[in-house]
Amino acid sequence: MAPSALPAEQETVAELTNNGIELNVSKTAPSISKAVTPEVPQLAELDASRLEVNLTTSPRPVPGIGSPEMASQKTCTDHMITATWTAESGWGAPQLKPYGPFSLMPTSSVLHYATECFEGMKLYRGYDGKLRLFRPNLNCNRMLMSTNRIALPAFPPTELQKLIMALCAQDGAKWLPKDRPGHFLYIRPTMIGTDSALGVQRPTEAMLFILLTCFAPMDDIPGGMRLLASQDDMIRAWPGGFGYAKVGANYGPSLVAQGEARRLGYHQILWLFGEECVVTEAGASNFFVVWRTREGALQLVTADLKERIVLDGVTRRSVLEFAREKLTQGYKGLEKVEVVERRFVMQEVVEAAEEGRLVEAFGAGTAWFIAPVGHVHFRGRDFEVPMVEGECGRYTKVVKEALRGVMYGEKGYEGHEWGVVVEEK
Amino acid sequence: MAPSALPAEQETVAELTNNGIELNVSKTAPSISKAVTPEVPQLAELDASRLEVNLTTSPRPVPGIGSPEMASQKTCTDHMITATWTAESGWGAPQLKPYGPFSLMPTSSVLHYATECFEGMKLYRGYDGKLRLFRPNLNCNRMLMSTNRIALPAFPPTELQKLIMALCAQDGAKWLPKDRPGHFLYIRPTMIGTDSALGVQRPTEAMLFILLTCFAPMDDIPGGMRLLASQDDMIRAWPGGFGYAKVGANYGPSLVAQGEARRLGYHQILWLFGEECVVTEAGASNFFVVWRTREGALQLVTADLKERIVLDGVTRRSVLEFAREKLTQGYKGLEKVEVVERRFVMQEVVEAAEEGRLVEAFGAGTAWFIAPVGHVHFRGRDFEVPMVEGECGRYTKVVKEALRGVMYGEKGYEGHEWGVVVEEK
Repeated sequence: MAPSALPAEQETVAELTNNGIELNVSKTAPSISKAVTPEVPQLAELDASRLEVNLTTSPRPVPGIGSPEMASQKTCTDHMITATWTAESGWGAPQLKPYGPFSLMPTSSVLHYATECFEGMKLYRGYDGKLRLFRPNLNCNRMLMSTNRIALPAFPPTELQKLIMALCAQDGAKWLPKDRPGHFLYIRPTMIGTDSALGVQRPTEAMLFILLTCFAPMDDIPGGMRLLASQDDMIRAWPGGFGYAKVGANYGPSLVAQGEARRLGYHQILWLFGEECVVTEAGASNFFVVWRTREGALQLVTADLKERIVLDGVTRRSVLEFAREKLTQGYKGLEKVEVVERRFVMQEVVEAAEEGRLVEAFGAGTAWFIAPVGHVHFRGRDFEVPMVEGECGRYTKVVKEALRGVMYGEKGYEGHEWGVVVEEK
Repeated sequence: MAPSALPAEQETVAELTNNGIELNVSKTAPSISKAVTPEVPQLAELDASRLEVNLTTSPRPVPGIGSPEMASQKTCTDHMITATWTAESGWGAPQLKPYGPFSLMPTSSVLHYATECFEGMKLYRGYDGKLRLFRPNLNCNRMLMSTNRIALPAFPPTELQKLIMALCAQDGAKWLPKDRPGHFLYIRPTMIGTDSALGVQRPTEAMLFILLTCFAPMDDIPGGMRLLASQDDMIRAWPGGFGYAKVGANYGPSLVAQGEARRLGYHQILWLFGEECVVTEAGASNFFVVWRTREGALQLVTADLKERIVLDGVTRRSVLEFAREKLTQGYKGLEKVEVVERRFVMQEVVEAAEEGRLVEAFGAGTAWFIAPVGHVHFRGRDFEVPMVEGECGRYTKVVKEALRGVMYGEKGYEGHEWGVVVEEK
């Protein structure tokens, strides 16, 4: 097999090193240079204004709140959006069409080589009657970072956001009606390699798709989330790997440990890294603790992003920004906290628990939202995490209330810049 | 979300630790205990004797040797085999049916969470007119190890081998005719999670499929394979990860580096690990060097499997076994070599090259077979690997000849136990 040059449009995103993979918007098809270099084909960019709409003739019923269909996580709304890409011609016109199965060749890249990445977002029905997204630009930027990491094509994140909003506008009114304030639909933008050549190589064909799915809330767990710390012979991510990207390859390999945790009565794995047991993530969520140092300082602590083994979560980032703005100043009568992003190890958490200095812990992510942690098992030892205020720590509670406030347009948060209103059809 | 016990059949394969994931044949549905515990459903085992055959009515032409279709790696034979599994009922009857697209729900686990693994094998047309597989039991055992690691269902490896042989028997005579001795078809057994629930969890539905694909040989590269050593911020695998398993999650994340290598004129990445630059794999192949130590010993060296970051390749294993049996004794007039499996680092290779002690290097895997390496680029430095005997080192050549001999039933190898004859229809 002779070495072959890649199509020109890939060179703008292909970088040998992780450090080179950043939020570079595709530089393909720059309009200013059109027809200057006729040898290089002008590739079509992903363009939400080209959306073609084909509505379903078989609308389906919306599952009731608390119904088995809602809990199954299998029910999608009436429509989805798809867009296909080829290395030769770039992005085709996006399609809004009836939700239904894909036809994929058995040799498709995604089925063999995990050329896939996704985002997790929610569409919120506000108490003010409006539909909102929560900081969707962050998800769309991260999706581009993930496609770069997994050798899938680039796109302008703003176009992805427009497509997401178009699908939410189409199906939101029916599937998340105004009489369901405080509820949400789960949004799943995904990109897969559809190249049907079986060779191990960058896909020359890909598909973007966006789904809206019915999900039940997962953040209200009686007694809090129970975490099982990972063993040192099973790690989630490593430096130089892809733990920071939302690629399928981070999830499948975690399911054996996660399944075993569930079998043993835990909700999620608390993923540790290395001999020192560096604390990284809780299941598919970021992990926060509130502890008091031996010197007496109260701190909100989460893993930093330096080694790139932790996802740069939108909820994580929002917790940190909120806490830095409000909790460091004293908020609603609570003692001031320091906000700390750093590498921390399990031994620190254990010692804080044993010495009565562990105040709270919670997972933070889109799917689980802010989920209080009540219990951790680590290498043969169990310890409880305090759960004041009924089912939730005090700091966990105010963080959760603030983010919920923005998401659901509650009083005092209606015009918050993190909430992006969707005009529904 | 309440913790939920897993279906009983999964408990036999779900292990929290990597060390627990070994070649355990599924212990489901043991006939001896049938009806003893009626609460536990008896799950159907994968059973090749239940194969249902539905032949194509639209047979396709076979691409010519050297044709673009052959090189495209997109052309499969007339038929494929599929078998579906559910957590409730186990394995359905396998189907031999016309090759064609799959219908998959957009929420399918494999498209989001990389619940997928595969094997790479070849069907060889011998110079004695027979069709052969090469040590297929090793691939089928490894496939089970991979399904265990990626949370897919277990199966008896012998049944998988029977299914592979059934497909080869069906399509071999037409797609690999007797006038093509020395040629092969590529065999791709794959398993994917087809569960349509979007939650991050072990799939409760899965599909096994087996394809036969036309591939051009990749081992005859003028001047040998050119390798680009990986940078330390892009690591293929890590202890506690899954580098030893043939899961999709090892491949997609490697494609950016591999694409960049090709763009720069290299064939594959030489994957290094850690600050010491431990040498692990060459692209998707194992990597061997022949060098002379400063003490004067001639050695054939490859990475050991202890840290589980290297694939236990069938070709790798066969090279080692052949070399230990023959090359250590002196073979065809060649100087005796020591066969060494150990952790070795790039600096050792560089020093051997600089001091004139590097004798040969080659990649070893099913797709690339035994591919001589002619050139390596490592951190700004280039060095050539000797290529005696025209395009191939002397030891590379005898290893390659011996394995080819078994694969293609050449004189002196006709009855070798590594070659499994397929009776064609």
